Amino acid sequence: LISSGTSISQLMDQDKWERHRMVDRFIVEFLTIPQSTVFSRLLKPCTALAAYTACIVALPTVVALAAAKMQIALPFPAFSMAQLVLPASAHSLLGTLCGLVLVFRTNSSYARFVEGRTAWGALIRHCRDVARLSMYIPDKRLRRRLLELVTAYAYVLKARLRSGRTRSDPTDPTAFKDIPDEAVRRCITEPALAEKVLESVSTGNRCLYTLLLISKTLKASLAKGLPSDIHWNIEESVSNIGLSGGICERIIATPIPLSFTRHTARSLVIWLLTLPFVIVPTMGWMSVPCIFTLAYLILGIDEIGIQIEEPFATLPLTPLCAVIERDLGIAIADMETNEDAHAFADANAERVPDVVAR
Amino acid sequence: LISSGTSISQLMDQDKWERHRMVDRFIVEFLTIPQSTVFSRLLKPCTALAAYTACIVALPTVVALAAAKMQIALPFPAFSMAQLVLPASAHSLLGTLCGLVLVFRTNSSYARFVEGRTAWGALIRHCRDVARLSMYIPDKRLRRRLLELVTAYAYVLKARLRSGRTRSDPTDPTAFKDIPDEAVRRCITEPALAEKVLESVSTGNRCLYTLLLISKTLKASLAKGLPSDIHWNIEESVSNIGLSGGICERIIATPIPLSFTRHTARSLVIWLLTLPFVIVPTMGWMSVPCIFTLAYLILGIDEIGIQIEEPFATLPLTPLCAVIERDLGIAIADMETNEDAHAFADANAERVPDVVAR
Amino acid sequence: LISSGTSISQLMDQDKWERHRMVDRFIVEFLTIPQSTVFSRLLKPCTALAAYTACIVALPTVVALAAAKMQIALPFPAFSMAQLVLPASAHSLLGTLCGLVLVFRTNSSYARFVEGRTAWGALIRHCRDVARLSMYIPDKRLRRRLLELVTAYAYVLKARLRSGRTRSDPTDPTAFKDIPDEAVRRCITEPALAEKVLESVSTGNRCLYTLLLISKTLKASLAKGLPSDIHWNIEESVSNIGLSGGICERIIATPIPLSFTRHTARSLVIWLLTLPFVIVPTMGWMSVPCIFTLAYLILGIDEIGIQIEEPFATLPLTPLCAVIERDLGIAIADMETNEDAHAFADANAERVPDVVAR
Amino acid sequence: LISSGTSISQLMDQDKWERHRMVDRFIVEFLTIPQSTVFSRLLKPCTALAAYTACIVALPTVVALAAAKMQIALPFPAFSMAQLVLPASAHSLLGTLCGLVLVFRTNSSYARFVEGRTAWGALIRHCRDVARLSMYIPDKRLRRRLLELVTAYAYVLKARLRSGRTRSDPTDPTAFKDIPDEAVRRCITEPALAEKVLESVSTGNRCLYTLLLISKTLKASLAKGLPSDIHWNIEESVSNIGLSGGICERIIATPIPLSFTRHTARSLVIWLLTLPFVIVPTMGWMSVPCIFTLAYLILGIDEIGIQIEEPFATLPLTPLCAVIERDLGIAIADMETNEDAHAFADANAERVPDVVAR
Amino acid sequence: LISSGTSISQLMDQDKWERHRMVDRFIVEFLTIPQSTVFSRLLKPCTALAAYTACIVALPTVVALAAAKMQIALPFPAFSMAQLVLPASAHSLLGTLCGLVLVFRTNSSYARFVEGRTAWGALIRHCRDVARLSMYIPDKRLRRRLLELVTAYAYVLKARLRSGRTRSDPTDPTAFKDIPDEAVRRCITEPALAEKVLESVSTGNRCLYTLLLISKTLKASLAKGLPSDIHWNIEESVSNIGLSGGICERIIATPIPLSFTRHTARSLVIWLLTLPFVIVPTMGWMSVPCIFTLAYLILGIDEIGIQIEEPFATLPLTPLCAVIERDLGIAIADMETNEDAHAFADANAERVPDVVAR
Repeated sequence: LISSGTSISQLMDQDKWERHRMVDRFIVEFLTIPQSTVFSRLLKPCTALAAYTACIVALPTVVALAAAKMQIALPFPAFSMAQLVLPASAHSLLGTLCGLVLVFRTNSSYARFVEGRTAWGALIRHCRDVARLSMYIPDKRLRRRLLELVTAYAYVLKARLRSGRTRSDPTDPTAFKDIPDEAVRRCITEPALAEKVLESVSTGNRCLYTLLLISKTLKASLAKGLPSDIHWNIEESVSNIGLSGGICERIIATPIPLSFTRHTARSLVIWLLTLPFVIVPTMGWMSVPCIFTLAYLILGIDEIGIQIEEPFATLPLTPLCAVIERDLGIAIADMETNEDAHAFADANAERVPDVVAR
Repeated sequence: LISSGTSISQLMDQDKWERHRMVDRFIVEFLTIPQSTVFSRLLKPCTALAAYTACIVALPTVVALAAAKMQIALPFPAFSMAQLVLPASAHSLLGTLCGLVLVFRTNSSYARFVEGRTAWGALIRHCRDVARLSMYIPDKRLRRRLLELVTAYAYVLKARLRSGRTRSDPTDPTAFKDIPDEAVRRCITEPALAEKVLESVSTGNRCLYTLLLISKTLKASLAKGLPSDIHWNIEESVSNIGLSGGICERIIATPIPLSFTRHTARSLVIWLLTLPFVIVPTMGWMSVPCIFTLAYLILGIDEIGIQIEEPFATLPLTPLCAVIERDLGIAIADMETNEDAHAFADANAERVPDVVAR
Repeated sequence: LISSGTSISQLMDQDKWERHRMVDRFIVEFLTIPQSTVFSRLLKPCTALAAYTACIVALPTVVALAAAKMQIALPFPAFSMAQLVLPASAHSLLGTLCGLVLVFRTNSSYARFVEGRTAWGALIRHCRDVARLSMYIPDKRLRRRLLELVTAYAYVLKARLRSGRTRSDPTDPTAFKDIPDEAVRRCITEPALAEKVLESVSTGNRCLYTLLLISKTLKASLAKGLPSDIHWNIEESVSNIGLSGGICERIIATPIPLSFTRHTARSLVIWLLTLPFVIVPTMGWMSVPCIFTLAYLILGIDEIGIQIEEPFATLPLTPLCAVIERDLGIAIADMETNEDAHAFADANAERVPDVVAR
Repeated sequence: LISSGTSISQLMDQDKWERHRMVDRFIVEFLTIPQSTVFSRLLKPCTALAAYTACIVALPTVVALAAAKMQIALPFPAFSMAQLVLPASAHSLLGTLCGLVLVFRTNSSYARFVEGRTAWGALIRHCRDVARLSMYIPDKRLRRRLLELVTAYAYVLKARLRSGRTRSDPTDPTAFKDIPDEAVRRCITEPALAEKVLESVSTGNRCLYTLLLISKTLKASLAKGLPSDIHWNIEESVSNIGLSGGICERIIATPIPLSFTRHTARSLVIWLLTLPFVIVPTMGWMSVPCIFTLAYLILGIDEIGIQIEEPFATLPLTPLCAVIERDLGIAIADMETNEDAHAFADANAERVPDVVAR
Repeated sequence: LISSGTSISQLMDQDKWERHRMVDRFIVEFLTIPQSTVFSRLLKPCTALAAYTACIVALPTVVALAAAKMQIALPFPAFSMAQLVLPASAHSLLGTLCGLVLVFRTNSSYARFVEGRTAWGALIRHCRDVARLSMYIPDKRLRRRLLELVTAYAYVLKARLRSGRTRSDPTDPTAFKDIPDEAVRRCITEPALAEKVLESVSTGNRCLYTLLLISKTLKASLAKGLPSDIHWNIEESVSNIGLSGGICERIIATPIPLSFTRHTARSLVIWLLTLPFVIVPTMGWMSVPCIFTLAYLILGIDEIGIQIEEPFATLPLTPLCAVIERDLGIAIADMETNEDAHAFADANAERVPDVVAR
């Protein structure tokens, strides 16, 4: 959504940072305004405002012409725009206030965006910790099950966060129903377990159910000889995985107070609707493009703020899930080539026998 | 309160986010101003200010007419508004300051709102942790009691945070006495225990007493064979549940320094009361709607700030409690169908007998 | 201090929030300006500034009259205020800067206020944790001593934070020497121990000494059979109690850099002293109330900022200590009626004998 | 990049702080503008804007001359700049908004910079903790291997964060491919292990693989007699080392929402492109240097913001890695001279035999 | 430095807060401007700016006089300042931007100041924790050595943070080489150990070496019977002590991005250098004091920001170290009078023999 389909589904790398940083960006960004998603979304309200301004500019002339044509004496003959003019100073006070409120709103939206991204960063971190610590699970089967369930959790969480469906605009790339079935079946090699995870949607909280399954696997591992303190370390990582999910849910469930968002939109609309009365007298027909540009720039900030307020439509969740799948895959592959690990231990044993013997 | 009865008692979902994000919001919000709660609450002061402005506009004419009628020579014949005019520059300085202070206040209120919501998010998380870890409690009865007490804690905390009663405005949806009796009796299946929780209100801190009961249940579980380290992990979650309650209490008990709130209100009122002297000379009767609109937009920010300063009237606490009840219900249901868990363990045992045997 | 003696010594409850939120606050606050503490404290500097402005307004007339009376030709006959006038634009730049600096300062002061309050919130929380966990201490006497010492710690800390004495203004309610002797003797039922706590003021850090006594009690409890992991959990809570005290001490010991506070005060004074040269030429005698009002509103923000910079004079420490005493009292009372706890355990034992037997 | 090649690769010390603080900096910085990297990068867009302004200034004269020469009557004879003039007030509103947005953006970039630096600070801290705690590993060989792998991790992480390659500008000091091979081979004295670390780049996550090797070393140490609780303390430090890496990856992978960056650049360009219509009428040819300076100062803030948005090109990662290598080298050296430590223990044993004997 | 030699080396107490808060501060601070350090440091650049302004004011007259005297016709006879005048609006835009940037910079500097102070607060807290927990070390000698090494660490860290030397200004109280030798020798009663700490400066990281010595002491204590879990609690406190040191080092090593600081200084200088062209036409000779005052107020904020950017020159490190020495001294004294502790335990034993016997 944020500007083209591609930026949603990608993580930045050094090449993209370089393009991002190049000094030609000022010209490039200026020329690509017509392709920007924000611009296309705002085209309708901005055009409406421009048309409204044009009406206000034309009104006195039209009224005079009409009166002349119909030979009606206007009730207020000396009527002119000048009597409707607002003083710029009173209006600019409102403008400053709108600006401060807008920046505050953008700030709060951005904080939610960062919090959402950080929660996914923490999710990746704790998944990696589980991957690393799982090497102490003596039972290979349980270890694999644990890693698979953790991978599945990421996909299940993603599906929960993107449960929407577009009604009004089927081409909107941010709104689609995310179905985790394929991914869960790919990650979990035991079909019965995969079905159990998928069916648990009926209990109302598939994420929690997946975590319960993970804890059951850990309980079984404990019974199979996983050292007790390592067991609890993994449980703590699992608890933190649940925390990341909880943060995401909180962000989805609670927006910035709605009355605040509404008040901001209302202030902006009132400000823009009264602006022509300030600038038409001095600028005439030039007001029309001027208002269009101002409306684009100001409503654009509100639009971006509202897009990142719910960050999971914008964040590259699919690549992040792929990172988790890859990293847990490294741990599974490492487990499979456990011969190598044995060799590692053996090489070590050979080199330091005297220390051990001591 | 925040804008209609419904938004208080609901969590956002993807459908609502879509409505929230649609670009028509600018028009919709503008047209629904008359239905907004903030508008209806501010109608009185805004109308008063408009009337006050009308008086100022009318005064010179009225005085002149009265003098003419009563044929009294005015002591200051050349009297006109122009002599009372404030220069816009001095006034706009005060306006900038008011704007900054207002934004600071809103910011601080919003931080309290976020902190309150985060505390409830943490409460949910730790309740889920208790639910997950309770599977290690060997005694089913104690496990059920623990989960029920934790569910009850959420309702008891909610009741504590919404203990108010409306005296002046019985229709105000944010102010009502929350009685947890029904919910506590529903959650706790042992009637004696439920009564004990409910009666403890006389000690002065029902929340703390509920936590003491939880700890006693844990102590009994420890005696019944709950592994010692798991016991402490649950105790830590319980301690964090208490922390969430403590944060909520702190938010309720300590507002933004009252002198600050008062100074802001005073600055705004003084600013609005002197504004007519700035704009009446140039705008005449147009000042009346102008002041009304400005007062609505500016006092509206203060009003929203003061509403979210005490966030528990605005936050959807009832649905959040329902989430806790549902999630702990999943754990209880899972416990009841423990046969399934046994099957899980058994299936596992069947599949990996050789590993165990090794 | 912040606005009347009462608001210092009270915690907010739902009733007060309702009054706080009512929409009449704009009128009420405006009418109560003369009773506000901030106003009464600032009366002196504001009046001085108003007098100074009056002199500037009167000066040209006085000089002209005096010259006429004494028939002295003025060296600069065409002298008028106009030549001393500052352009509003240059001055308003300084005004914007002052505004930003003032808001920054208020923000930092408020952050200190919140930090101080949060530290006391954490103190309450950890005291409750100690209360809850102390149920594992088998020796009733040591348990009671522990809870009493923790209660005493709160009073000792309060005394440390409010060690001031008013020299210049004996009626100032925020400045008084807090003597903890009465409270400590009430909380600690062993007189020898209470004396020991009180005498330790001579070592230079009574708080640390109280914590050492708590740790000694815990060491003795450990020797009497307190399980080792629970012992350490309590030790951690005690460490966190010490942390809360440390945060408070840090806030007391280190203000916002003094040079910053001074620079802000200097900027404000210079801005206000030069303001008459900007507005007197256009406003004449109206400048006097105008400057008085502006000075009150602007210096008021600085005054509030400086009051909450050291938050322990403003925060309701006495009620917070009372909360701790009440909550630890609940735990002590619960211990005394341990029969009840035995009954609880017994009831449990009776109900689930078969499970235990299994 | 930030201003010269040297400031990238250095840590500040007291001497540099003194130069940084000296009051002559105002003059020095002003005179060194032409050498600043920001200035040289912005020279192109600023010159373009100045040329554009010159065209606007010259246009009416040129058109008039051309018309006179070619003896063509202009279609709009009374044409003058005055008709294209924008009112300063409308434009300055946009300017305030741009300023707020710019400051918000810089703030967010700076927060990312601080977060990146703090992550490296935490990395250093946890490496030091591993160094300190490794003294409990009884096997010297494993201890050395652990410390070497941790040192290598820092270099591997650095290589991951600086994986870019400059395509457009080969002289740009911030963009180069960082090859860790030499450093890894220097740090790890077992060549087979070093190769294993280097080859693991093929798995897609060399950092994770290095952490897996560290955990394997710890598992082997556990088997060789490292006490279990110390083992877990080190594991936790290793987990935190992974966390630091994860934070850095997150910063690299997710920029400030691109639509926001683009909107800011577009606003600035539109503001600067319309500025000549505001100032040319009053300033004439003086507008050209004026616009050049304004563009440099305003675009400079955006440029700096975008440079520190990806902080790993700017932060002195090489010296920070050297600090880790030095500090872990101290621990290794201390281990080698373990005789000294034995002496330390012996001296102690000699001095306090009676206490021990008691 | 921040305002006089005394405020560097002192902690605030209630008396100083009272002076800080008194309402006369506005007058006092205004009158003490000439004694302020910031003023004396800025005297040079402010005077230079005032002289520059005076030149601009005098220039037209001087040129005219010179031309008249030398009877040269000026090439541009109608030359006057008016043609060089900048419009106030364009300039004030730059002023707003400078203001925002300046406030952002001050904010960031202040955040560093608070972080540095908080790190020292945490250091004190963890030292106190070590003091409290050390009572579980059975060997008195090792306990004393531990406490002494921790005290020495504070002095060693202070010496590291204040390693500068003044080259340009020998009277500057903030810049001096801090030699910890005397303090370390006073704190550590075993001369050999003190020498070892002092000599370790050659390894490049004396702080880390001191921590290694502390860990060795703990290892020896573990061997002498310190319970294992208490041992690890102390190790964690030691790790946190190291963390505090690491935060301080990070603050020293990494300033706010230099390009940002430079850009701010450049913007301010350009703004002040062009200001005369805005105000000289209307204000004439009054511009000179006006520019001097503005320069003092604006550059003063930058100056304060740059002073607190490196907070360890400003923070009262010496009194903070003294606090640590005092608090650890209380623990040592308490250890020496262990008879008292025995009595404490005995009294307890006497009072509750029946409970023990049970």
